[in-house]
Amino acid sequence: MTRETQILEIISRRFPQNYEGIVVGIGDDAAITRIEGSAVVSASDLAVEGVHFTREWSTPWEIGARVCAANCADIFSMGAQPRYLLVSMVIPDSISLSELDEIALGIADEARAAGAHVVGGDISAGSILMISIAAFGYPVNEKIEDGRFLRSNATPGESIVLSNLTGRSRMGYEILKSGREDLIHDYSAFVAQFKKPRVDYNFVRKIMMGPVGACIDVSDGLLSELGRIASASGVDIEISPEFWKELPEWDEVERLSSELKLSPEEMVLTGGEDHAFIVTTSFPSMMGGITIGKVISRGSEQSNEDFIIHMGHKRFTKDSLLGYRH
Amino acid sequence: MTRETQILEIISRRFPQNYEGIVVGIGDDAAITRIEGSAVVSASDLAVEGVHFTREWSTPWEIGARVCAANCADIFSMGAQPRYLLVSMVIPDSISLSELDEIALGIADEARAAGAHVVGGDISAGSILMISIAAFGYPVNEKIEDGRFLRSNATPGESIVLSNLTGRSRMGYEILKSGREDLIHDYSAFVAQFKKPRVDYNFVRKIMMGPVGACIDVSDGLLSELGRIASASGVDIEISPEFWKELPEWDEVERLSSELKLSPEEMVLTGGEDHAFIVTTSFPSMMGGITIGKVISRGSEQSNEDFIIHMGHKRFTKDSLLGYRH
Repeated sequence: MTRETQILEIISRRFPQNYEGIVVGIGDDAAITRIEGSAVVSASDLAVEGVHFTREWSTPWEIGARVCAANCADIFSMGAQPRYLLVSMVIPDSISLSELDEIALGIADEARAAGAHVVGGDISAGSILMISIAAFGYPVNEKIEDGRFLRSNATPGESIVLSNLTGRSRMGYEILKSGREDLIHDYSAFVAQFKKPRVDYNFVRKIMMGPVGACIDVSDGLLSELGRIASASGVDIEISPEFWKELPEWDEVERLSSELKLSPEEMVLTGGEDHAFIVTTSFPSMMGGITIGKVISRGSEQSNEDFIIHMGHKRFTKDSLLGYRH
Repeated sequence: MTRETQILEIISRRFPQNYEGIVVGIGDDAAITRIEGSAVVSASDLAVEGVHFTREWSTPWEIGARVCAANCADIFSMGAQPRYLLVSMVIPDSISLSELDEIALGIADEARAAGAHVVGGDISAGSILMISIAAFGYPVNEKIEDGRFLRSNATPGESIVLSNLTGRSRMGYEILKSGREDLIHDYSAFVAQFKKPRVDYNFVRKIMMGPVGACIDVSDGLLSELGRIASASGVDIEISPEFWKELPEWDEVERLSSELKLSPEEMVLTGGEDHAFIVTTSFPSMMGGITIGKVISRGSEQSNEDFIIHMGHKRFTKDSLLGYRH
């Protein structure tokens, strides 16, 4: 068991979720709670210097906007509108006031795009830059209280739709790591995606009222998030082999992968931090998204954890995913 | 202007508070916002290793409980009940899983005392231990939307009531700093108050429905918080000289101050982190609290920032407070 898994086990043991007002507690993209009869959807996200970003690679504006985007994407992927944000920051002395102003502007600009407003927070001195944002909002689709949008809500027969190609953030990271100025220049969209993912708020706003089964945003990689849906819903998943080859971005992805001697398949399937949305739906296709596969029934001999993601002749299981991830 | 003041100015400029759903935004103990018609009161608090606590001086349980207490006190001091918490933690490799378990238990125990439940959060690796908690809940007293409990709501003639003697946390800190084992033993209640303040939830629950004008919790010291009320309400304040001498704890405070060659007055007036509640009220006294003075009219020649806190022949102003604080 990894340290992260052990930490999550400790947390779920110490923080019981059995209070009557908790509709959905720890374990999905966000929590759904009741306050005086109204449903409040909430989630928080951390960005730590040296772990999630470096000041060498990202501008202050990008650092602020990036964590705000990740946080708002969590709320949207529950079928909810993020409305208010609390921003806590550890601000080292090495951050100038104008850099801080840019961080705040990045948060404010991304919040505006998401329709959210900063209403409070806390600041502290400290040795590394750290930003923690807590977002809360309300369900747009009233059926989320019946389970709609939860990762446990995928049903065999549903299509799987992806809002945007995944792996672009990871490719941006690989470009920066290579230090190659020519690639930084020629593939600037990937670099920009790593520094500050463009969350497709238009897509998620369009699907909000639609026949969504499960929804999740891609933080840790496509296969990993599909595995979460499969595991929580007790289903298997089938994805079209090389679905990415039909996308307009494909040429660029292929050329860049060959330049960097990377597997484009690995980039698309395991690259994280794009905050694309995965949606399962009874619609055969969905406005603006890419249909990448479908939800299928779980074989009767498999246990709940034993999902299989089929991709042509390839099969990904929980264990093989762990090995596949980096 | 201090760096902190400059940072706060940048934040308030970048995060405008004019959205219609924001009843009270940045600037009080917590925000009051509207979600689908319901009022939601929210605030977040940071605890950073080396700034707010050290692992040498505090146990993991105390570290977790302390930040949770500070956060819940902020919500209570708005006349509201904290109900849900989001906990974000940066967890260095040097924290063992059993220490992490104790931190989580500390948070859970304090949350239970406050009537709150952890429903989500985020974790990350990182070089220093950091805990950020965001709390949200609902107003118990419906008049808080008319301004009740806000620091801007004190009126001349009201009594000023303090829930508990301030300065005890600071005295605990001074004991630990002295390294004197005899004092750590003999004055363990002060040390305990520094490590994990006992927030008087009973007091604040009792006054919730009462005729409260302004309410604030003491994070930065009694004079400093009284100054915030005076400044926001456009009033002056009169406090009884040496009111603390009438309290049962006085003997201990006096003895300890003489042992450590500290001014007991400075401890009580400027010591922070006790999270005692200051309440202004039209009741002549309040159940369980200590009446320490009264709200008086601002002299007509003073500007809004120019409050005066009178204590016998002493006068504290904004500028003299800055000098008085450490």
